[in-house]
Amino acid sequence: MSDLLWQKPGVKVDARIQRFLAGEDVVLDREFFAFDIQASRAHAQGLQLIGILDGDELAGLERELDALAMDFKAGRFVLDERYEDGHSAIESRLVERLGDAGRKIHTGRSRNDQVLVATRLWLKDRLVQVAALCRESAEVALARAQAEAALPLPGYTHLQRAVVSSAGMWWAAWAEGFIDDAVRARDTLVWVDANPLGSAAGYGVNLPLARDHTTAALGFGRLQVSAAYAQLSRGKFEMAAIEALGSALLDLRRLAWDLSLFTSAEFGFVALPAQYTTGSSIMPNKRNPDVIELMRASYASVAAARTEIEQLLSLPSGYHRDLQFSKGAIFHAFGRGLGALELLPDLLRNLEWKPEPIRAALDPSLYATDLAVDLAREGVPFRDAYRQAADPARWAQGDPEASLAARVSPGAAADLRLQVLRDRLAGLC
Amino acid sequence: MSDLLWQKPGVKVDARIQRFLAGEDVVLDREFFAFDIQASRAHAQGLQLIGILDGDELAGLERELDALAMDFKAGRFVLDERYEDGHSAIESRLVERLGDAGRKIHTGRSRNDQVLVATRLWLKDRLVQVAALCRESAEVALARAQAEAALPLPGYTHLQRAVVSSAGMWWAAWAEGFIDDAVRARDTLVWVDANPLGSAAGYGVNLPLARDHTTAALGFGRLQVSAAYAQLSRGKFEMAAIEALGSALLDLRRLAWDLSLFTSAEFGFVALPAQYTTGSSIMPNKRNPDVIELMRASYASVAAARTEIEQLLSLPSGYHRDLQFSKGAIFHAFGRGLGALELLPDLLRNLEWKPEPIRAALDPSLYATDLAVDLAREGVPFRDAYRQAADPARWAQGDPEASLAARVSPGAAADLRLQVLRDRLAGLC
Amino acid sequence: MSDLLWQKPGVKVDARIQRFLAGEDVVLDREFFAFDIQASRAHAQGLQLIGILDGDELAGLERELDALAMDFKAGRFVLDERYEDGHSAIESRLVERLGDAGRKIHTGRSRNDQVLVATRLWLKDRLVQVAALCRESAEVALARAQAEAALPLPGYTHLQRAVVSSAGMWWAAWAEGFIDDAVRARDTLVWVDANPLGSAAGYGVNLPLARDHTTAALGFGRLQVSAAYAQLSRGKFEMAAIEALGSALLDLRRLAWDLSLFTSAEFGFVALPAQYTTGSSIMPNKRNPDVIELMRASYASVAAARTEIEQLLSLPSGYHRDLQFSKGAIFHAFGRGLGALELLPDLLRNLEWKPEPIRAALDPSLYATDLAVDLAREGVPFRDAYRQAADPARWAQGDPEASLAARVSPGAAADLRLQVLRDRLAGLC
Amino acid sequence: MSDLLWQKPGVKVDARIQRFLAGEDVVLDREFFAFDIQASRAHAQGLQLIGILDGDELAGLERELDALAMDFKAGRFVLDERYEDGHSAIESRLVERLGDAGRKIHTGRSRNDQVLVATRLWLKDRLVQVAALCRESAEVALARAQAEAALPLPGYTHLQRAVVSSAGMWWAAWAEGFIDDAVRARDTLVWVDANPLGSAAGYGVNLPLARDHTTAALGFGRLQVSAAYAQLSRGKFEMAAIEALGSALLDLRRLAWDLSLFTSAEFGFVALPAQYTTGSSIMPNKRNPDVIELMRASYASVAAARTEIEQLLSLPSGYHRDLQFSKGAIFHAFGRGLGALELLPDLLRNLEWKPEPIRAALDPSLYATDLAVDLAREGVPFRDAYRQAADPARWAQGDPEASLAARVSPGAAADLRLQVLRDRLAGLC
Repeated sequence: MSDLLWQKPGVKVDARIQRFLAGEDVVLDREFFAFDIQASRAHAQGLQLIGILDGDELAGLERELDALAMDFKAGRFVLDERYEDGHSAIESRLVERLGDAGRKIHTGRSRNDQVLVATRLWLKDRLVQVAALCRESAEVALARAQAEAALPLPGYTHLQRAVVSSAGMWWAAWAEGFIDDAVRARDTLVWVDANPLGSAAGYGVNLPLARDHTTAALGFGRLQVSAAYAQLSRGKFEMAAIEALGSALLDLRRLAWDLSLFTSAEFGFVALPAQYTTGSSIMPNKRNPDVIELMRASYASVAAARTEIEQLLSLPSGYHRDLQFSKGAIFHAFGRGLGALELLPDLLRNLEWKPEPIRAALDPSLYATDLAVDLAREGVPFRDAYRQAADPARWAQGDPEASLAARVSPGAAADLRLQVLRDRLAGLC
Repeated sequence: MSDLLWQKPGVKVDARIQRFLAGEDVVLDREFFAFDIQASRAHAQGLQLIGILDGDELAGLERELDALAMDFKAGRFVLDERYEDGHSAIESRLVERLGDAGRKIHTGRSRNDQVLVATRLWLKDRLVQVAALCRESAEVALARAQAEAALPLPGYTHLQRAVVSSAGMWWAAWAEGFIDDAVRARDTLVWVDANPLGSAAGYGVNLPLARDHTTAALGFGRLQVSAAYAQLSRGKFEMAAIEALGSALLDLRRLAWDLSLFTSAEFGFVALPAQYTTGSSIMPNKRNPDVIELMRASYASVAAARTEIEQLLSLPSGYHRDLQFSKGAIFHAFGRGLGALELLPDLLRNLEWKPEPIRAALDPSLYATDLAVDLAREGVPFRDAYRQAADPARWAQGDPEASLAARVSPGAAADLRLQVLRDRLAGLC
Repeated sequence: MSDLLWQKPGVKVDARIQRFLAGEDVVLDREFFAFDIQASRAHAQGLQLIGILDGDELAGLERELDALAMDFKAGRFVLDERYEDGHSAIESRLVERLGDAGRKIHTGRSRNDQVLVATRLWLKDRLVQVAALCRESAEVALARAQAEAALPLPGYTHLQRAVVSSAGMWWAAWAEGFIDDAVRARDTLVWVDANPLGSAAGYGVNLPLARDHTTAALGFGRLQVSAAYAQLSRGKFEMAAIEALGSALLDLRRLAWDLSLFTSAEFGFVALPAQYTTGSSIMPNKRNPDVIELMRASYASVAAARTEIEQLLSLPSGYHRDLQFSKGAIFHAFGRGLGALELLPDLLRNLEWKPEPIRAALDPSLYATDLAVDLAREGVPFRDAYRQAADPARWAQGDPEASLAARVSPGAAADLRLQVLRDRLAGLC
Repeated sequence: MSDLLWQKPGVKVDARIQRFLAGEDVVLDREFFAFDIQASRAHAQGLQLIGILDGDELAGLERELDALAMDFKAGRFVLDERYEDGHSAIESRLVERLGDAGRKIHTGRSRNDQVLVATRLWLKDRLVQVAALCRESAEVALARAQAEAALPLPGYTHLQRAVVSSAGMWWAAWAEGFIDDAVRARDTLVWVDANPLGSAAGYGVNLPLARDHTTAALGFGRLQVSAAYAQLSRGKFEMAAIEALGSALLDLRRLAWDLSLFTSAEFGFVALPAQYTTGSSIMPNKRNPDVIELMRASYASVAAARTEIEQLLSLPSGYHRDLQFSKGAIFHAFGRGLGALELLPDLLRNLEWKPEPIRAALDPSLYATDLAVDLAREGVPFRDAYRQAADPARWAQGDPEASLAARVSPGAAADLRLQVLRDRLAGLC
């Protein structure tokens, strides 16, 4: 490893301990690196504004930061165990290329606010992706709700057949769910959109840092005012972002459960294109819906990330090294979560209903509730109507299309109110 | 127990199984009962609008629901194991008092949407409380930040003395934290503010239910459109509400940690009024800051509630009885969480700084960073300045007030920007 | 509330704060009360052995403790908000009845070791129950595995039909699972079976407490030696007990999932007696397997309890009030968990297979793996055999009984090795 | 990627979907690879015993498996994205080198039992390490307890000074804790020590697999009998192993908290060698105890792994692809957990007490409990003695050594009973 920024003369460094301390940190920092460079650029501009750097120094730093960003993107610069972390790597490169200007870049800055700002920019980027994927999924669902409004489907509660439902109702449910998830992601994005750069180690510095400039330059919605709160928001803001991601993944888990059942031989309601399935190493007959299962499982990784961070956050105020472990946690959550969401819109586009097994599942019991309500409409008190309709002798094979056509309560099959959902979705774009 | 709504002739009920099924459910329903009655009133109005009830029937139902609400509030009606749940209790009472009108109240409604709407109203009520307590805590913190802006305090990272900080910085951090928490609670309130009543068992009914009326009558911000999504939002919305509560409790946990340390003999920075402490059964010398410790511990209950709900939510769409356990979870989270937050504003008002131990803790090392930055301002590249300032021979007892006065970076001691925080807070009221 | 043990003259007590501190603590202590009395009796005996109490005082204390235990059991003594906690209630009653002997009972004892020992006895009691219920469930499963060894059942992976399985294999799986769970509960019981009484507030006392006596008198397997470790084991031992309970509940969750699917109309493999189902308030046709769903859901409460405790345990050594919240957590976990396990043996006894839907599900694809292995036995390299057997043209309706009879790998249908499991189970009793 | 084992003619594979399915799986399989090879060797031997392989084929397979193991260890064979997973890589290599013998290796085996057996061997290996590190930590603690039995230390409850304690008591607590943890790891090792190989896809095969042979050859304590239970134990056994690891890490978290406080300037009780600390990028004065903080934080990763697995395990019986995510979870937990435990014995050896700050913290209040008990010994009822001793006027600077010498309750300073702990520890080796 290169020299440590903080290394003091005469203090020997224990390799085993350094390995433990570094962990996979520098590798994880690859996720943040582009954002760290971007924020370093804004910080350098700020230093020039307050006279710490002159124009030439700033120009050199900007040039070298841009070059580093390009080298990193192109794979010409590899962030690896030679460096303690990504922050040190940037400073080290700038010193190597620019000498004193590089030695000045860290003026008024701590790795504490450096990692905060890089994390913040990264979280914002990921929340934008979550929102976009939720919107796209909702769009697909809305289109299919419209197109398949009249396709009957058994409706279940407790996994027991309940009443006639429709593909339209099924799709509309997911549409509204993913719209809500997109709203949550956007609200959370706005909530975390505050610039921590310039808070230094949590106590500010004796320099009039140009925090308003960096806030604007980095595209933040507001300044995170208090230097000490910037530290307190470490982990807290990650938790909120994970929660927003988790909201979408909770829906995806339930959607995947539906598809896992619907693609079983016993239900048989849905066919998936072959590329969504895999085979078995021993059973030649198998086509397994692994994609759906891993989508379902992805929530577990989101929940795990939250556990990891919230377990860390039982701390007094100020920075503690414990917080380092929050990095891997958010990469794990968003890696798994976005990986699953990315496949969702196409999956929704591609799944096919199998009308015959669906039709076969529409048994007479599914019309009993319609009957009870019909009796109630005719004046029989509902509780009495219910008792009458509970007699299987009164159930008969009904017409599912007629049942759907009569389901006129708002939000039900005959009055899906998709336009309301379309309007909410449009309001998000 | 009274007759079960759904009981069928000839099916024997096993008492042990019924006990397991009922659990503490009816007792928990006490929390919801007032909201359930309120929603039943709106539902009855809707039934009258679509002709299921006539004016007299509605008047009777409204009168008896109001009476039941008052009886419950006054303790004249006790919701207990005589009933399967709160929903059954309401219907049972209405039937007893009104006969057929009572038997009609459940027309077009399921206990599934009944519990959804009661939960929704309850969550909204609790989120309003969370937001209010966060705002009040932020107000106290802002006032003390202003009043004690100049009081030095050691600043820590890694629990090691770092730089001179101030009471002003400490208070401002909590102020901004609780403002963010209030915003999160408010955003979450808006997000969950959707009316599920009228979704029946998740598939609507063959009646043109007056859902727009109940949305307005119950004060909801919007209709939760899809009947099937109403079911999917069970647990999901609870998770969001818990997350908003948890955001405040995460801050409280860290605040409590600070106070736990600051009230130790070793730090000795803070004195708490005696009523915040308790004694020991064996050690006559003890005054323990139990209030602070239970505040710190309260996050655990919030996290537990989330675990409980998210573990339940690995389910296909539609209602499943598993979801029943989400009720106790939210009561536990908000019971503990609000219990802790309610004591916070007064605690913040009442805690006192002890200047002498604080002053004694301001040792010379705390000025080393100021020195390094001073050197950097004079043109020494920061990395070199850092090395010079690392020499303990260069540290000297400084003037903490001067250090604070020079801390001019925005959000630091000399430029706390409290007005920005005050403006955000004002925007919330 | 009665006087607080530790109350000091002139310190006013704030009712709101006391309410927060007490919480539901005294109500929760009802669970522990009999064990607290039992341990108090052993402690009194110990005090007599070292001369703090004389024989008459001991006799009085034993008599009154026995009386209190009986009064409590019979409902003549109610532990309620009059007391700060159960510990104070015992001392208060003894003082009331015996005067000075009552005032002596707390010599050499702290509420810290008092709650530890009561918790320990309670956990042991609950782990005995867990082990017994797992053993009983395993017995039922073994008996049915034997009886139904030859009943074919489709075997699934990924919820897709895989190969012919059998009821015998299904039952044997649960048998081995619950045997493991019983072993885990027993191992955990042995692990926690250490006496913390006599550790006082975590630092012992200046008295030669008769800890060996109380260890024997209370039936502990060993002394928990270190007074400071006794405190450190608070929460840690609860975590282990919860894990043991959770092991059984994890199995129950998967078992309940099987039954939830098997009782759906689409699978239709299993019939449950009517008392295991409930109806709907709106849908007259429904019989829902709520018991199974709440069994499935019970793991969530176990997981929640663990979260609650582990979130608390980020603390320095020594007692902290945070730990109080571990009480409610274990009651919740074991209340829900044992509640579900108690119904399990009968459920296993009572569920019935429905041969016709099962038979209908045994489609030709289920024999493809048998075919591949048959080819391999004849010398075709398995990977080639697999490719040949993957051709649906080669699948034919097979004989499920013959498939099972040929499944001779140990632990499969034709060689279930139930005797090995019976022997392990017998070794547990 | 090489050909997929299960690929069927004419089914196109979608690269994006395959990427999602594969994830980091093949990279994770590096952890398992040596164990997978070892188990493949035992499986091949078994196949020879039942006539599927002849002697030459077995010899070839054994030779190539050994060569692969050595190539992998030496870095000559890299397991990477060319393969779907580690299992496929082994078969692929054997086919490449041996032709038909390689095509036969998978006879009677599924990747399902292949991953089970590799995981089982890996977990056993890791639990051995956990137990060994706990034993070693306990040994150090016991030795220091003996050596420093007479060194006074303030004892705390609620972070408030309570009574005089000793370094001996502090060390003895950790000794007993880590002994318990070693026992838990060993018990868990025995519990999971069951051979799943030969269960195929969870339903066995139509071959008399030599499972007793593989059980012995792989060093398992017993056969995991039921083929279907082998699948059900996936995740469940991981949970138990994580719990055992977590037990040690819970203790480590509290130990690290003590050290975090004790190394603060305010406490100042402990000095750490410089190599356990790091510096700051901005504050030249800092030496931060990062090692301790990351040790404290490591529990979070263990808890996260448990969350990840338990969230997955809400499934019907049989294999589901969801379970794949349990792999990364155990690597994360044991990677972080063992990483922290490995540094513990040396840390315990190297930490130094700083007598002066310790002595300064022993204030008069610490003797009040001694006084109350002294009065009780003289016959004053303890509750009265407590009230007398609560008067600060009666407190005086005491002699800490005398206080310790009088602390004769078993497990306290004057009767630490270290021999009992030494005997338990010896029984573990």
